[in-house]
Amino acid sequence: MKGLKLAALNGQKRTVIDVGGVRIGEGFTMIVGPCSVDDEETFLATAVAVKEAGADMLRGGAFKPRTSPYAFQGLGLAGMKILAKARNLTGLPVVTEVVDPRDVRWVVDYADVLQIGARNMQNFSLLREVGRTRRPVLLKRGMNATIEEWLYCAEYILSEGNPNVILCERGIRTHETYTRNTLDLSAIPAVRELTHLPVITDPSHATGRPSLIGPMCNASVAAGSDGLILEVHCDPNKARCDKDQALTPEQFAAIDRNVRKLHHFMEDEQDAQDPSGSAQWNMHDICGGYDLQSPGACGN
Amino acid sequence: MKGLKLAALNGQKRTVIDVGGVRIGEGFTMIVGPCSVDDEETFLATAVAVKEAGADMLRGGAFKPRTSPYAFQGLGLAGMKILAKARNLTGLPVVTEVVDPRDVRWVVDYADVLQIGARNMQNFSLLREVGRTRRPVLLKRGMNATIEEWLYCAEYILSEGNPNVILCERGIRTHETYTRNTLDLSAIPAVRELTHLPVITDPSHATGRPSLIGPMCNASVAAGSDGLILEVHCDPNKARCDKDQALTPEQFAAIDRNVRKLHHFMEDEQDAQDPSGSAQWNMHDICGGYDLQSPGACGN
Amino acid sequence: MKGLKLAALNGQKRTVIDVGGVRIGEGFTMIVGPCSVDDEETFLATAVAVKEAGADMLRGGAFKPRTSPYAFQGLGLAGMKILAKARNLTGLPVVTEVVDPRDVRWVVDYADVLQIGARNMQNFSLLREVGRTRRPVLLKRGMNATIEEWLYCAEYILSEGNPNVILCERGIRTHETYTRNTLDLSAIPAVRELTHLPVITDPSHATGRPSLIGPMCNASVAAGSDGLILEVHCDPNKARCDKDQALTPEQFAAIDRNVRKLHHFMEDEQDAQDPSGSAQWNMHDICGGYDLQSPGACGN
Amino acid sequence: MKGLKLAALNGQKRTVIDVGGVRIGEGFTMIVGPCSVDDEETFLATAVAVKEAGADMLRGGAFKPRTSPYAFQGLGLAGMKILAKARNLTGLPVVTEVVDPRDVRWVVDYADVLQIGARNMQNFSLLREVGRTRRPVLLKRGMNATIEEWLYCAEYILSEGNPNVILCERGIRTHETYTRNTLDLSAIPAVRELTHLPVITDPSHATGRPSLIGPMCNASVAAGSDGLILEVHCDPNKARCDKDQALTPEQFAAIDRNVRKLHHFMEDEQDAQDPSGSAQWNMHDICGGYDLQSPGACGN
Repeated sequence: MKGLKLAALNGQKRTVIDVGGVRIGEGFTMIVGPCSVDDEETFLATAVAVKEAGADMLRGGAFKPRTSPYAFQGLGLAGMKILAKARNLTGLPVVTEVVDPRDVRWVVDYADVLQIGARNMQNFSLLREVGRTRRPVLLKRGMNATIEEWLYCAEYILSEGNPNVILCERGIRTHETYTRNTLDLSAIPAVRELTHLPVITDPSHATGRPSLIGPMCNASVAAGSDGLILEVHCDPNKARCDKDQALTPEQFAAIDRNVRKLHHFMEDEQDAQDPSGSAQWNMHDICGGYDLQSPGACGN
Repeated sequence: MKGLKLAALNGQKRTVIDVGGVRIGEGFTMIVGPCSVDDEETFLATAVAVKEAGADMLRGGAFKPRTSPYAFQGLGLAGMKILAKARNLTGLPVVTEVVDPRDVRWVVDYADVLQIGARNMQNFSLLREVGRTRRPVLLKRGMNATIEEWLYCAEYILSEGNPNVILCERGIRTHETYTRNTLDLSAIPAVRELTHLPVITDPSHATGRPSLIGPMCNASVAAGSDGLILEVHCDPNKARCDKDQALTPEQFAAIDRNVRKLHHFMEDEQDAQDPSGSAQWNMHDICGGYDLQSPGACGN
Repeated sequence: MKGLKLAALNGQKRTVIDVGGVRIGEGFTMIVGPCSVDDEETFLATAVAVKEAGADMLRGGAFKPRTSPYAFQGLGLAGMKILAKARNLTGLPVVTEVVDPRDVRWVVDYADVLQIGARNMQNFSLLREVGRTRRPVLLKRGMNATIEEWLYCAEYILSEGNPNVILCERGIRTHETYTRNTLDLSAIPAVRELTHLPVITDPSHATGRPSLIGPMCNASVAAGSDGLILEVHCDPNKARCDKDQALTPEQFAAIDRNVRKLHHFMEDEQDAQDPSGSAQWNMHDICGGYDLQSPGACGN
Repeated sequence: MKGLKLAALNGQKRTVIDVGGVRIGEGFTMIVGPCSVDDEETFLATAVAVKEAGADMLRGGAFKPRTSPYAFQGLGLAGMKILAKARNLTGLPVVTEVVDPRDVRWVVDYADVLQIGARNMQNFSLLREVGRTRRPVLLKRGMNATIEEWLYCAEYILSEGNPNVILCERGIRTHETYTRNTLDLSAIPAVRELTHLPVITDPSHATGRPSLIGPMCNASVAAGSDGLILEVHCDPNKARCDKDQALTPEQFAAIDRNVRKLHHFMEDEQDAQDPSGSAQWNMHDICGGYDLQSPGACGN
């Protein structure tokens, strides 16, 4: 991956991205909300509920890429206005997907973070366009993308002048059918050794099953993820999109409590082992602390 | 998965398998050693080193399934005798792979746990033969197997009368090439909701990269794994098999410390939330504690 | 696939698309040229050479989606002008990729067929935009797309009012590494039983190896493909893109001769078996001629 | 693939394997029959029907590897005796699967060709055991195997002294769900450039859909396959195994006619282009006839 001129780690400091006071890449960030913005009442109710339950940021799609042209495609501008209301109501920054380079110009007025979805990971026109703004970009991994291809997509954005890229592992497509996708958690430490950009995890799309989301949230923290993006709906049965994988606010509240305790535990261990804070417990203290080239003598 | 007559969870108690005092499915089990038994001196040195570093059981292959017929295939009976010596020396039970149904009869005299490798997961003759013993069996998931196919392979063993099956997730084959395989950690909670059998993780074969093993060990604990199987060699550069992914005993010691602290933390949280001990923190308290069918009212 | 309102076969006539007198879906169409338009001299030389060797249409990219932002991205408008010159010089219609919805408006002035590349298969904004023209669209299958998802992308274009969609199988991403992708030839008869749209094959991108292209061209004809799209360059070693898989004009001439003989043979057999011409030899006469529901009595 | 000491092509003559007068690797071989030997009456009826319809050899499983231990596992020895009767009745040699190394010794008394199934491709004990006989072996590609791994499995058999290995492509497991597997036809010319062993195709297991089998048979011939193995049952609805993909004898008869005409056409073309018979039309005359390293000058 010699060509990652801007994205490569190369011993530099990890990037922290400030989104309205939420610092992604520092602490642990919870981005929560329904798959799509269905209507104002439901979205605002969900927004308030997830804020109370611990969310740091709101998510909600106004443009929904759907397999069929006849499925609900999102509310567009009307949805953006609902997102803005939710931000005013809760004080939480909002993340929303942009799918067309022509929309970037005006979506930046509504979105605190621009999401590039998995299907558009290699939509290079769109990458360049969001790269020409300074708005933070949440770049989801394509469902068949290698880690290398994903990082080159980050490089597309960085090379246009926007340094604010957040990576998001959301599961890859494999032969397994029990889960919607296969969450590739080894991508988290892989990305952390290859790039300085923050990386979060999306267990909702990866598993597609509420019963697996909790354990995969915990596993994401333990793997070194900087945050989570979760689908939560105040009434999942009425969700217009992905209702089978949506959590209730109560379920999210329980996950949030556990995940934050786990993250504090991991940070405390990290600090105890490395008071300088220069390394990360779950990674460099375990393996990186040893010179892999001369792994030490033993009895023989 | 209606046909899992014996393997299905169906609300029954989780199986705990006693291997010479090590109770798999209770606490957290560390199975450690080199990929192959290369020679007596090296294996005994590694065995002593990993015991001191925290291992509960020893692993080491005397029969090695290799892509090429001209690669080192293991020491066979001579290797088994070295395993027995290592057990005597350290007191640790040993896990070793069996690849031929004709060998099961005598390998049981040397092995505390019989391993079925990924390539033999659907070698039904071999499954039936180990099913006719009462020796615990470590059943690795095939690299292209669905979770359903894997559990049916456990059912083959159980249906012959051997109830002692330990499942092992070791990564599946995907399009990603940065890692050797893709560790499917969502399979851990999936298996836990489908079956009562214990399940462990193999981050060494899954990642093929020492730098990723530590984070994936932590993530395995957090996902609800009952243990780990790790490749450790007292001098990785001299290993005759898989040397690129072998850890040193020192690296393993650091992982062992971190993993056990993390496991204790998870258990303490679990006990605090569920004093009866009937559920598991990282799974049922997060999502299972809510009735997924009536997910609560909200504003609308 | 109930939602394919416009793309579904439903017993209707197969679509034939006229591109400047070349009728795709009738006879056999050869679309040939370099991966990218590198410079005028080379492109015109290649264009003349492939016309002499038997090509029906020219291909050449002026917009190249590349993994790295620092790789050659195509000549853009300058490339389009070279394509127009080549068309004037040879009389062959041209196919070229469009990657940004904002470019569709003016690219239609240069392209006889608009290509949607594999990475943009689910770029729904782009699909809608080309759907609003009447220019024929060559829709490549995404490298991780199911046949169903691919046909729904065709439906996106059709639903905007453009009936001229040509499907193109170009290989899917699998675990195999000997070939660049895995050509899924079973998709050809699958598509033919699901939709009335013509379908062609791209063995260049699918195999990535010149030595395999010839056999895969023959196999495509035999599977029922309506044509081929092939990368040919008058000096492959100097190609700025995909030079390892480019054929020389001489290699293409040999393939063209063989493929057309084979296609005539297949058509003659078809006509002999079904003088009405209502079925297709390599498909409906083989299996469709029998009632699959009552497969006939036998001795027992 | 440097380690293929015996399997590599290295410019040597293609292997032709004689099975009771049927010469595999010369002409085109049709191996036909039901998935499993269900009962004597049905099997003999099918055997007679497929012989009349054009089969060169019979197939039928007496040992069936099945996902569930409770599914029909085949008739074992009783099935072998039925196979022997069918051979006596029709004069056709029989192919049958062996799954346990302990059975090889006596199955050779019943089988003219020993089949190694996809699940057992890397069952190295079984490979060595069939390698110690001189009975021809039909080696199916594992559903997640690379071409390289597959050829090394052939090498296991050859290295034990048995030179009679027939390779069989039967589809690989991918993300596509419309077909049972994905037939990798590019593996046919790939294998032909890497090894001297004959290679056949199994479109029944690859597609799992009768409507796709005919086109894939034609495509296999055109890709250079030396034969086909097809599931045919005289009453598919009553088949105990894989009934959804079984053809009727009448359907097979139509495929057989078309495939043989196509094969003769391909051979005639080959002879016309290369009277010495040293190359193969669909491969070396198309691409191999040109020096890929100096692909010829063009106008620029």
